[in-house]
Amino acid sequence: VVKDNSYILKLSCVDRPGIVSEVSGHLFAQGFNILDAQQFNDVETGHFFMRVVFGTADGAIPAEPPTNGFRSIAEQLGMRWSLRRLGEKRRVLLLVSKFDHCLVDLLYRSRIGELPMRIAGIVSNHPRSEFLDSDFGEIPFFHLPVTRETKLEQEAELWECIQKMDVELVVLARYMQVLSDGLSAKLTGRCINIHHSFLPGFKGAKPYHQAFERGVKVIGATAHYVTGALDEGPIIEQDVERISHRDTPDDLVRKGRDIERRVLAKAILNHLEDRVILNGRKTVVFTD
Amino acid sequence: VVKDNSYILKLSCVDRPGIVSEVSGHLFAQGFNILDAQQFNDVETGHFFMRVVFGTADGAIPAEPPTNGFRSIAEQLGMRWSLRRLGEKRRVLLLVSKFDHCLVDLLYRSRIGELPMRIAGIVSNHPRSEFLDSDFGEIPFFHLPVTRETKLEQEAELWECIQKMDVELVVLARYMQVLSDGLSAKLTGRCINIHHSFLPGFKGAKPYHQAFERGVKVIGATAHYVTGALDEGPIIEQDVERISHRDTPDDLVRKGRDIERRVLAKAILNHLEDRVILNGRKTVVFTD
Amino acid sequence: VVKDNSYILKLSCVDRPGIVSEVSGHLFAQGFNILDAQQFNDVETGHFFMRVVFGTADGAIPAEPPTNGFRSIAEQLGMRWSLRRLGEKRRVLLLVSKFDHCLVDLLYRSRIGELPMRIAGIVSNHPRSEFLDSDFGEIPFFHLPVTRETKLEQEAELWECIQKMDVELVVLARYMQVLSDGLSAKLTGRCINIHHSFLPGFKGAKPYHQAFERGVKVIGATAHYVTGALDEGPIIEQDVERISHRDTPDDLVRKGRDIERRVLAKAILNHLEDRVILNGRKTVVFTD
Amino acid sequence: VVKDNSYILKLSCVDRPGIVSEVSGHLFAQGFNILDAQQFNDVETGHFFMRVVFGTADGAIPAEPPTNGFRSIAEQLGMRWSLRRLGEKRRVLLLVSKFDHCLVDLLYRSRIGELPMRIAGIVSNHPRSEFLDSDFGEIPFFHLPVTRETKLEQEAELWECIQKMDVELVVLARYMQVLSDGLSAKLTGRCINIHHSFLPGFKGAKPYHQAFERGVKVIGATAHYVTGALDEGPIIEQDVERISHRDTPDDLVRKGRDIERRVLAKAILNHLEDRVILNGRKTVVFTD
Repeated sequence: VVKDNSYILKLSCVDRPGIVSEVSGHLFAQGFNILDAQQFNDVETGHFFMRVVFGTADGAIPAEPPTNGFRSIAEQLGMRWSLRRLGEKRRVLLLVSKFDHCLVDLLYRSRIGELPMRIAGIVSNHPRSEFLDSDFGEIPFFHLPVTRETKLEQEAELWECIQKMDVELVVLARYMQVLSDGLSAKLTGRCINIHHSFLPGFKGAKPYHQAFERGVKVIGATAHYVTGALDEGPIIEQDVERISHRDTPDDLVRKGRDIERRVLAKAILNHLEDRVILNGRKTVVFTD
Repeated sequence: VVKDNSYILKLSCVDRPGIVSEVSGHLFAQGFNILDAQQFNDVETGHFFMRVVFGTADGAIPAEPPTNGFRSIAEQLGMRWSLRRLGEKRRVLLLVSKFDHCLVDLLYRSRIGELPMRIAGIVSNHPRSEFLDSDFGEIPFFHLPVTRETKLEQEAELWECIQKMDVELVVLARYMQVLSDGLSAKLTGRCINIHHSFLPGFKGAKPYHQAFERGVKVIGATAHYVTGALDEGPIIEQDVERISHRDTPDDLVRKGRDIERRVLAKAILNHLEDRVILNGRKTVVFTD
Repeated sequence: VVKDNSYILKLSCVDRPGIVSEVSGHLFAQGFNILDAQQFNDVETGHFFMRVVFGTADGAIPAEPPTNGFRSIAEQLGMRWSLRRLGEKRRVLLLVSKFDHCLVDLLYRSRIGELPMRIAGIVSNHPRSEFLDSDFGEIPFFHLPVTRETKLEQEAELWECIQKMDVELVVLARYMQVLSDGLSAKLTGRCINIHHSFLPGFKGAKPYHQAFERGVKVIGATAHYVTGALDEGPIIEQDVERISHRDTPDDLVRKGRDIERRVLAKAILNHLEDRVILNGRKTVVFTD
Repeated sequence: VVKDNSYILKLSCVDRPGIVSEVSGHLFAQGFNILDAQQFNDVETGHFFMRVVFGTADGAIPAEPPTNGFRSIAEQLGMRWSLRRLGEKRRVLLLVSKFDHCLVDLLYRSRIGELPMRIAGIVSNHPRSEFLDSDFGEIPFFHLPVTRETKLEQEAELWECIQKMDVELVVLARYMQVLSDGLSAKLTGRCINIHHSFLPGFKGAKPYHQAFERGVKVIGATAHYVTGALDEGPIIEQDVERISHRDTPDDLVRKGRDIERRVLAKAILNHLEDRVILNGRKTVVFTD
């Protein structure tokens, strides 16, 4: 539910004394009550990270959006920040190739309101006919096939798609094409990929087969922001499952589907609830 | 390591607007820098919980302990609070009956400095001769045998022990005697028990045998504050392990030892680092 | 994939020397090769349990089904047993009330061939109009409303449904009606329920709210065979997830959906692959 | 407890029809009753693996050890095999460097009879004086210091130690020296190392610092047989723990100690109970 009188403030800046005091003092002076707050001081990099959920103390809709009042503090402290209504739905583009378990899962979660998002569209390098069993409802589907020769053009189309539809988050829901450095750069911090291994183990292609060959006893999946370096982006969420010598590569693929679905969904939820902040090669995740 | 210029403030009170602003403003005014802060507003009960780690901005030892300055704010807001030096070791009494795996584990963790505590003494209803394999070093051992008839006297002795040695935390490290309501009340919020089941399942005696009889597929352990109601106290930490039909009650006991050790140690660490705050029948735990 | 030359033999009987020798000797004599075998001797009850996967050594389709040859051994040793083609799809009836996350999940898993089953029908005490977002394809839907007064009649209809459609497994996929003792008895060992708590904790209604009230730090779900005693049937599978003081009952419901889906799916897969054998109040589960 | 009338048979060979029948038929003919059996057919490599626990049907001590009778079958089928009394304690050598948490843990587990082993000795490249807090009881301690120049001589001494004391299993309990190819080859399948990462991620030195740098959300530990290739040996057991952005490298080291202890102990238990069989670069582990 969007709450008209509640907001999420997410910010990061160089650490220095008094930030919490300044932010909380400002909110109090504006008549807001802090409902939840988490902060983190990275002593290694000297950076400060904060997430604050606040609302009007009386439950009324504020006369003017709190964004305006906050801008001067943010500028003064050199913050990277965002301020959104609690529960506001953001526009998300889902990219998929052949395997649709993450796609179907996200459609369901979106439908029952578990994820605060509006699916702006579905993009695939495979044609719509391969997803006949799936009901996409009103969601537009874009078939953007790609070959080595047409990759540049395809990414241009994709980028146009993203801009036209005002997409705020791109999700690679088992999209098996590597984004170019250029497109990755444009999508910094707003493109999430699910890799079907427990990174940094088994980067690249066919990770379940790699895991089978190596004889590991636990497999996993990793949701991370996409960067130019393949499978090297900042990790948002990981999870694992035990396996045994009895498991064939097909079994790993099957067991992996469950891990991938829940890891990707959790990463998206955390992103959409403004719980994730980039911290260089890493992320700060303020969990619930 | 005790840091002479860093402190942990732990507090709870009835929620109202401006608490974070007031606390952080006060600390800033006193020349302190917030290093870590977590808070929680329980909308159900209307209570506010906070843990703040702070230090002098310049790293110097403060002229006067920050406790004094904070007292008036705390009183004004009706807070229950504590303020301690970061890393300060607290005096802990360990109670044990026959099984010493938790005791031995805590002795080791204490020795290598993993837990910020000083073991004030070890109390058992079994004699020292049953623990011959264990090296207690300089730690005094008290044999306080107990029967149904002498329970009152034994608890009186125990209570004297606790007072004389200025014990701040009592740990029932597989101490198989139920504390009376009276003693439990005196130790509210500073007596931790490890129960060898995943509460609320399998309360009372022989939980692993109960679990075996029921045929569960996962067993667990629960660390909780002791109250007058057996196995009903506020839960601090729980963890589990998978089992199978092949596991005998003896196997469950063996697997359970590992769960008990880590659950109890984690609960104690969280307590000693002032991460746990009582919230009626529950706890707020600000994890790392 | 159904393999025309491979079979799963599942059996249990009173233990005595020579069973493995007799079974494996028989299969060898018939020209079969054992591909996988697991057994369990319950020393407590003196019962023997076995699962054997075998195929013709030359990969050919056997002249006659191995069932016939096995019958005499089985009778002689007083076995309860089944023998099925590997991968054979069994007819399953799904029952659901309001929440459809398990239903939708099972439909998807069935569609991609993850579960060796054919969904014979979907039964709900809620009308089809409440599931408009779900595409049931060709699967027949039966609306069987129920009140306290009509429970007897409704169960009679349900039982007729089960018989007419030759249903081998009934799945209560968040079906919030308690089956009567009579119907439970008819469905012994072939009706699986998902309970949304870590049994034996939080039996009965609204387990997530019970868990919230109690302040547990881990929640779970339990798949079990249905018996006349509510939430007391033999457990097939359980799993858990960590929670914190920040989680509201709604958060528990959301997190629980993920646990319920995977626990129920895993229990059904194990049942359909003949990995589960009843052992009194418990189950033997030969995992992969 | 050593059972004079019960045995564990562990074997592997090229797969072919009739092995189970032959082995179980033989045991039955000799008057033995199978108590537990697990097998695995690796379709990829065409190898067969089996673990059988059996005892005399009447509970009597067998007239002659079953080893003799089994030899001809084993030779005929080209088996690699072992046959031991159930519960027989094997001679284990523990190697340790600076960090003694695994050592202390194994000493305790050995003392309470959790692991069927006799600790033949403790070897360290650090002097006894660094372990003053640990009570080694009667267990001989060998200080074998090592430098790049003296590695050859040190390993020769170590090997002599192993032979003289008739050591059956060598455990690298956080021994921070890499064994040479030569020594690794001599100890194939009977030297277990604990690596403090979730392999294949973070091989080599300072894995927790590598994990911190990479920003993973889960850390782990891996117990594996030692081979000439560093951190590449067949994996026996792995486990993991969640971490967050708040965890410093020191926190990872602390949390890692718990994972390392239980992963190493579980791998050793499985090895000593003859549950682990080498399968090329991998292991077959017949879990309980």
